[in-house]
Amino acid sequence: MASCKCSSSNMRLSSARRVPARVARGAAVSRRSNFSQALNTVVVGLAADSGCGKSTFMRRMTQVFGGDPAPPAGGNPDSNTLLSDMTTVICLDDYHLNDREGRKVSGKTALHVEEQEFDLMYEQVKALKDGKSVDKRIYNHVTGVMDAPEKIESPEILVIEGLHPFVDKRVRDLCDFSIYLDISDEIKFAWKIQRDMAERGHSLESIKASIEARKPDFDAYVDPQKEFADVIIQVLPTQLIPGDTDGKVLRVRMIQKEGKEMFDPSYLFDEGSTISWIPCGRKLTCSYPGLKMFYGPDTWYGQDVSVLELDGQFDKLEELIYLESHLSNTSSKFYGELTQQMLKNSDFPGSNNGTGLFQTLVGLKIREFYELLVGKEVKVAA
Amino acid sequence: MASCKCSSSNMRLSSARRVPARVARGAAVSRRSNFSQALNTVVVGLAADSGCGKSTFMRRMTQVFGGDPAPPAGGNPDSNTLLSDMTTVICLDDYHLNDREGRKVSGKTALHVEEQEFDLMYEQVKALKDGKSVDKRIYNHVTGVMDAPEKIESPEILVIEGLHPFVDKRVRDLCDFSIYLDISDEIKFAWKIQRDMAERGHSLESIKASIEARKPDFDAYVDPQKEFADVIIQVLPTQLIPGDTDGKVLRVRMIQKEGKEMFDPSYLFDEGSTISWIPCGRKLTCSYPGLKMFYGPDTWYGQDVSVLELDGQFDKLEELIYLESHLSNTSSKFYGELTQQMLKNSDFPGSNNGTGLFQTLVGLKIREFYELLVGKEVKVAA
Repeated sequence: MASCKCSSSNMRLSSARRVPARVARGAAVSRRSNFSQALNTVVVGLAADSGCGKSTFMRRMTQVFGGDPAPPAGGNPDSNTLLSDMTTVICLDDYHLNDREGRKVSGKTALHVEEQEFDLMYEQVKALKDGKSVDKRIYNHVTGVMDAPEKIESPEILVIEGLHPFVDKRVRDLCDFSIYLDISDEIKFAWKIQRDMAERGHSLESIKASIEARKPDFDAYVDPQKEFADVIIQVLPTQLIPGDTDGKVLRVRMIQKEGKEMFDPSYLFDEGSTISWIPCGRKLTCSYPGLKMFYGPDTWYGQDVSVLELDGQFDKLEELIYLESHLSNTSSKFYGELTQQMLKNSDFPGSNNGTGLFQTLVGLKIREFYELLVGKEVKVAA
Repeated sequence: MASCKCSSSNMRLSSARRVPARVARGAAVSRRSNFSQALNTVVVGLAADSGCGKSTFMRRMTQVFGGDPAPPAGGNPDSNTLLSDMTTVICLDDYHLNDREGRKVSGKTALHVEEQEFDLMYEQVKALKDGKSVDKRIYNHVTGVMDAPEKIESPEILVIEGLHPFVDKRVRDLCDFSIYLDISDEIKFAWKIQRDMAERGHSLESIKASIEARKPDFDAYVDPQKEFADVIIQVLPTQLIPGDTDGKVLRVRMIQKEGKEMFDPSYLFDEGSTISWIPCGRKLTCSYPGLKMFYGPDTWYGQDVSVLELDGQFDKLEELIYLESHLSNTSSKFYGELTQQMLKNSDFPGSNNGTGLFQTLVGLKIREFYELLVGKEVKVAA
């Protein structure tokens, strides 16, 4: 049998892990079955509730493609759009049917499907995907009114983020890659308490009432979209601290669809098996409550998925490197890239837990997906 | 970082795993701190109850050193001794103080420490370790009397197996490597039912009575020795089938002492961490109830140990190879040696579960231990 002369197990795992990616990239052109030469924009959809860290997610993801995402220069300062070297992120709130006053008349929440202009959403996303620029109006979150349109050029990667990217089948079908950010009720509540009560002085009762008021429409129109996502990031209370509800220590699951072309789910140790791993021990010491990872096959709305899970938080860089060195199929271009990306954004919320880790990992996976789909190589972000 | 060009993950893991062993072997001479040049016999002690598979264990272990173990040619057909190319196994029952009739007079069981001649045991084991031959009497298990002595030459590896190898401190200190085979009461009972009731027609009541009668002395004189073992093999009921008591599917744990010189515990995936692994999944399909492995640190009578555990049984060769390919520090000399050794003895009891796997693994570990201690290389068994 062939012999492998690697002296460090970390190096061994990381190098070997990258082999499939390299092979896959070599075969990029032949795998571009669904992508016409005429189209040059890859569309990524991200569905999530408001106030759940979509913008952090977007910053992590787009940074993998290089550049610092920023609103259009010289444009409306309240624009919801984020431009970067290769990516444009538009917010689907810009396709609300009514402004805040209008919804008072209609009596419907912004979560309701009847409060969205899906025809316009479809036309403009389609135009951008087809390489055309569009004049997209702006829903001003500060004033609650529709502002004058901004011109959006067709980018290499278009991200559409908002409450309803996968509700309208036409829009959904335009998405080459789809993500759902799924925050559990307990964590949403804990986060809202923290922000609205501690920082804004709202009462516990008013926070509860506002959550309850949004819940029926959220459950009816937003939540069902998670069936259509290629990757779901679930944020749940930790299981490491019994009875913990303060939402500071999180259990985060990355649910990855199996069988999607040009997307090989990331895994821990042994692909296709079921593993739980507590890395903290003789080689890695961690502070309370430590870290626990899980990997295993599951089903999601009848489809095969692989779940990668991280419970707990890392306090030291060493712990993050240790985790990365034991993950496979991360789509990183060099050993430690995932850690490096995390370090770049260490001031973002979630940088010490699974939300930051998996959001960054999704960025790397989408970069590889883009490379395979389009047949272009993305340079490593400086 | 260095790159590893291995095409198969199995090959990669297996080759890399052997690196530490090779390095260690290179340093064998300098590590022989406790072993005088004048001594040339390594003594291995195995403690276990009667009827618990000691002789199967011995056959598995000694075969790793080559040759088929057999009683001394032309000697007493009821000899308890097993000779092989490099190993001699003697049974410590030969050091019983009284024969069966004598114990009827003393009123003590064969498990009682006062029914053993520890002075003689020590003298003869010491003589054999010092390179001298001894005339060792034979306790005839068939007739229950002491037979005329047989001559035992000093071997390269002497295994002393029986009820009390670690009770007398002098004998215990002669052991270079010590093993305890720890069968749980539930499994002992299930095995005895199977053998004595199904095969010998004994009644359930008489079996229960015989187990109960032996238990106080076993608990008092045999069980406490497990504190002194370097490796404990525990055999427990499966946890894969709730409420299972028939003793056919087993959960077997290999408890390995940390910090013992020339013995690096075998591990799963990531040394020093805690892992549970269900290999049956997308790449490996298994029949009910499947397989589950566990690895993790623990303490044993206040000492650091690492536990490797296998619950369930393998039906196909493929499953065994898959397990082996994910174990590290197995002390095998080539990829698949553990599996090959298991296949050689596939007609032995326990060949499809953790008892066979870990007994064979202990054989490989002892072979490496011997090589490091003595500075000689053992040829791979044909």
